[in-house]
Amino acid sequence: MRFSKLFVPTTKEAPKDATLPSHAFLLRGGFVEQLGSGLYSFMPLGKMVYDKIYKVIKEEMDKSGAQEVLFSFVTPAELWKESGRYDVFGKELLRIKDRKDNEFVLSPTNEESVVNMVKNRITSYKQLPLHLYQINTKFRDEARPRFGLLRVREFVMKDGYSFHANEEDLKREFNVMHDTYSKIFTRLGLNFRAVEADSGAIGGSGSKEFMVLADNGEDDILVCDSCKYAANVEAAKRAPRTTNATPPEANMMSKFATPGADTIEKVANFFKVDKFYTIKAVIKKAIYEKDSKVVVFFVRGDDELQETKAQNACGALELVDADESDILKAGLVAGYCGPANLPSQTLFFIDNELKGAKQMICGANEAGYHTIGFNVTSFKDERFKDLIAVQEGDRCPYCDGILHKTKGIEVGHIFQLGQKYSKAMNATFLDINGKSQPFYMGCYGIGVSRLVAVVIESSHDEKGCVWTRQTAPFELEIIISNLKDEAQVEFATTLYEKCQNLGIKTLLDDRNERFGVKMSEFELLGFPYAVLVGKSLNDGEVELITRDGLIKEKVSIKDIEEKIKEKLL
Amino acid sequence: MRFSKLFVPTTKEAPKDATLPSHAFLLRGGFVEQLGSGLYSFMPLGKMVYDKIYKVIKEEMDKSGAQEVLFSFVTPAELWKESGRYDVFGKELLRIKDRKDNEFVLSPTNEESVVNMVKNRITSYKQLPLHLYQINTKFRDEARPRFGLLRVREFVMKDGYSFHANEEDLKREFNVMHDTYSKIFTRLGLNFRAVEADSGAIGGSGSKEFMVLADNGEDDILVCDSCKYAANVEAAKRAPRTTNATPPEANMMSKFATPGADTIEKVANFFKVDKFYTIKAVIKKAIYEKDSKVVVFFVRGDDELQETKAQNACGALELVDADESDILKAGLVAGYCGPANLPSQTLFFIDNELKGAKQMICGANEAGYHTIGFNVTSFKDERFKDLIAVQEGDRCPYCDGILHKTKGIEVGHIFQLGQKYSKAMNATFLDINGKSQPFYMGCYGIGVSRLVAVVIESSHDEKGCVWTRQTAPFELEIIISNLKDEAQVEFATTLYEKCQNLGIKTLLDDRNERFGVKMSEFELLGFPYAVLVGKSLNDGEVELITRDGLIKEKVSIKDIEEKIKEKLL
Repeated sequence: MRFSKLFVPTTKEAPKDATLPSHAFLLRGGFVEQLGSGLYSFMPLGKMVYDKIYKVIKEEMDKSGAQEVLFSFVTPAELWKESGRYDVFGKELLRIKDRKDNEFVLSPTNEESVVNMVKNRITSYKQLPLHLYQINTKFRDEARPRFGLLRVREFVMKDGYSFHANEEDLKREFNVMHDTYSKIFTRLGLNFRAVEADSGAIGGSGSKEFMVLADNGEDDILVCDSCKYAANVEAAKRAPRTTNATPPEANMMSKFATPGADTIEKVANFFKVDKFYTIKAVIKKAIYEKDSKVVVFFVRGDDELQETKAQNACGALELVDADESDILKAGLVAGYCGPANLPSQTLFFIDNELKGAKQMICGANEAGYHTIGFNVTSFKDERFKDLIAVQEGDRCPYCDGILHKTKGIEVGHIFQLGQKYSKAMNATFLDINGKSQPFYMGCYGIGVSRLVAVVIESSHDEKGCVWTRQTAPFELEIIISNLKDEAQVEFATTLYEKCQNLGIKTLLDDRNERFGVKMSEFELLGFPYAVLVGKSLNDGEVELITRDGLIKEKVSIKDIEEKIKEKLL
Repeated sequence: MRFSKLFVPTTKEAPKDATLPSHAFLLRGGFVEQLGSGLYSFMPLGKMVYDKIYKVIKEEMDKSGAQEVLFSFVTPAELWKESGRYDVFGKELLRIKDRKDNEFVLSPTNEESVVNMVKNRITSYKQLPLHLYQINTKFRDEARPRFGLLRVREFVMKDGYSFHANEEDLKREFNVMHDTYSKIFTRLGLNFRAVEADSGAIGGSGSKEFMVLADNGEDDILVCDSCKYAANVEAAKRAPRTTNATPPEANMMSKFATPGADTIEKVANFFKVDKFYTIKAVIKKAIYEKDSKVVVFFVRGDDELQETKAQNACGALELVDADESDILKAGLVAGYCGPANLPSQTLFFIDNELKGAKQMICGANEAGYHTIGFNVTSFKDERFKDLIAVQEGDRCPYCDGILHKTKGIEVGHIFQLGQKYSKAMNATFLDINGKSQPFYMGCYGIGVSRLVAVVIESSHDEKGCVWTRQTAPFELEIIISNLKDEAQVEFATTLYEKCQNLGIKTLLDDRNERFGVKMSEFELLGFPYAVLVGKSLNDGEVELITRDGLIKEKVSIKDIEEKIKEKLL
């Protein structure tokens, strides 16, 4: 393609809110345009990147045996009422009405649609397994869209859904998708990890996220330094923490006046013990579909509550901070709350690692008093949940390794849904014994349009994008330094045609622009290679520039074609 | 692909409302699924057809020099307010609100989005022309979705928009698109005509529709039998009609009692003249953005009013029948309304062909009376409009040919928009003289998902689809008659693998189904060819079936591969 014909409206400046490299470079390079809050349109260069990503995903999905479909984006609300999600999905689900006041949703995900497609059409275990996927527009009415393409409202997702006769077969497909996703992200040239994840609003048990490691990632990931274990902080586990610190002396439970010691620091100082032997109370308000409730979460004094784990523990739609009046009304005493002698009716959970802990210090549920010598032994099993945020330096749950914290951007998520949706929507098949059973389901998502930004986050420098060959809109740019120099134009044009004929996607910068503009746009747009045809053509030389590292080398005009073939064929 | 792995949920019966072949076969063949009124999902076979159509369109659009983009489907209402269409576009434009009560529309078309993309980014005539297109979801909240994929609410359209420095260049691109569309529909194997069209709500001047000729078409087309002229009835012209009938005797204008003659038939009988010499009044109510008005349209007694032309004449958003009270209020007399002595303030238009007509008979605007000897000579030019529906047998406006009526389904529409949107949205460039000017624009649409149905409408028989090679999900099906016959399985599987390796998209029917089921499904699904591997394999023969015409021929197993190559390579 000739640059003079291509619509690439670059700008020198990015808007102020574009703090991330991908956000700034996508706008500055004319890859995308913002149309509204969380709404973007793709301009030609952006569409080319998108297409390359799309193609890799489709090829690998087809190879895996999944079959492509296309669901209606506007979906009747009845389906979402059938699954029960119409009421519990938050405001991200945009509910709309048509001219006749019928209710619809803009698809944020399509479990309902796929169950509706398969229900009564697959009726026997003999027709299973089945995996249907689509690559289509989604809408989630994010409260605070930001970071360019990374957190938007309208986006394109590859969403696949599999149906199985039993859990074992679901696990098999889950592993197939694990491999398929790994192939996809590898082909896209990304540095990623598959991590254990929380299943969130999609539900089900057993899920993994594919995270591209990037400094600007929104997610915290814990990665073991000696085995393969990696997990999102929302789902991360650790070997139980231990300590060499001396336990408090008191081994009989008793109440102790601790005036003013209303934080863990103060309590530990007061008793001169390690925080390991204290119990921290975190008081939250859990929002449910129809009401709300104060909940207390107890963790070790040296641990932090992990919010998602806490939310899952109490099954709330959302957790918010409890305010003073909530706490008072619940009969609790801020700063002195402990698991012993809580007001009856209090909803509370205790972190798994506290189970059986002895000689602990905790609030006495009375202002100015703590309980000492408390043994966490008399609670029912259902009180104990995994509640803590695993920290940098904690031990791996599977080996002797140490866990390190890093940042990632979620690009894929695979779930074992089990029978959640098929049960709710009464989608069944006859099993090998002729018995009617709900399908076992898996679901598998990739953020297709998001990947356009993710590639940049994981590969850029201060001047612009550094596309991988697998994602670059053009593999090679040929820059004519001076359009008035006929020899330059002729050499560049001939080389351009040769490269095109070789099947190399090439852009010829034939614009009547200053050389400096052309170079800085090449750096901003970030195609893998450029051939600069300039003054040195008189000496029989051109310059080959490798965008990654901006490495420049003089190449004789005799050798340039070979050199390009070497790099790009 | 193996049929046993493919999700093709066929059914014997179609729903009752599926009166058209494409509607019935798409549902029965498991190509698509209806999710709601005017909402369809594509199942795997339907998606394959869709992909083939998509590919042809993209290839030809790219070849034409247009550049692909992707607009946000959810579009801020402000853009539509800027263009002025937010208020005048009917209820087909679905207006929605997000969680913060901001207004949006679901894109039914994207003139606003593209002007917004180009505005302030293309600033000089030197950067023109530019053509941007997308292939993306659209939504139009049709009052009465029907006919399967032919009249839906959510659909996929290829919509392209071009920008030019002057009208001449717009016309050049219009012709390029005319050729490009012709190539696309030819490649898809369709029997189509490019016809003159009305521009409808999109606006602008000069438009052509691409119509696939089909018995079940919703559109009436007039086609000249001796030149290339073809037009949608909404835009069709004709050479003015003439007559050999004797004109009425009276040549002085006078009022005549015609008791009970309140129809053209009765008037013509009463006076014993040809209807050619009478004037018919059609009274309508025109709906405007803020009010409505009674309008009278006058055409020759032997002509019919063409509603779209009438609507364009008075610039209404919609035309509805005027009821008795409307007519009374306007001071008109039903059955006796004529252009002479109308109540002042009456809004009326007269068909062009009546201009200068002499010795006419028309209503006297008084019950039981007609005016005779009326000459249509004293009206201002702006009263005269093209109002009539051209009929079968009328004369071509360009040659001596006769116009014939046929049915078509619209699959494409190309428009010369001119400056309508660029003016409204203040999108300008500096012309060669340094003067700021609004862009000249064209727009070009193809109904991508609709084409899936159109192919069937133009190619099917009573048993099912007859896909063209260019649109078929599979080019060849190899049917194993009896799965228990190992020789059949082995021969069919080997042939299948050979065909796959040749790049022929082949489906192996390896299902454990009765032969009759397999054959009738082949007929329903309509792949171009099938090889039937059955009992005659023992005699060294298989059967090659050509779906179009269901032609069967015995082929020796030695020759079958050559035969397939002959047909499909």
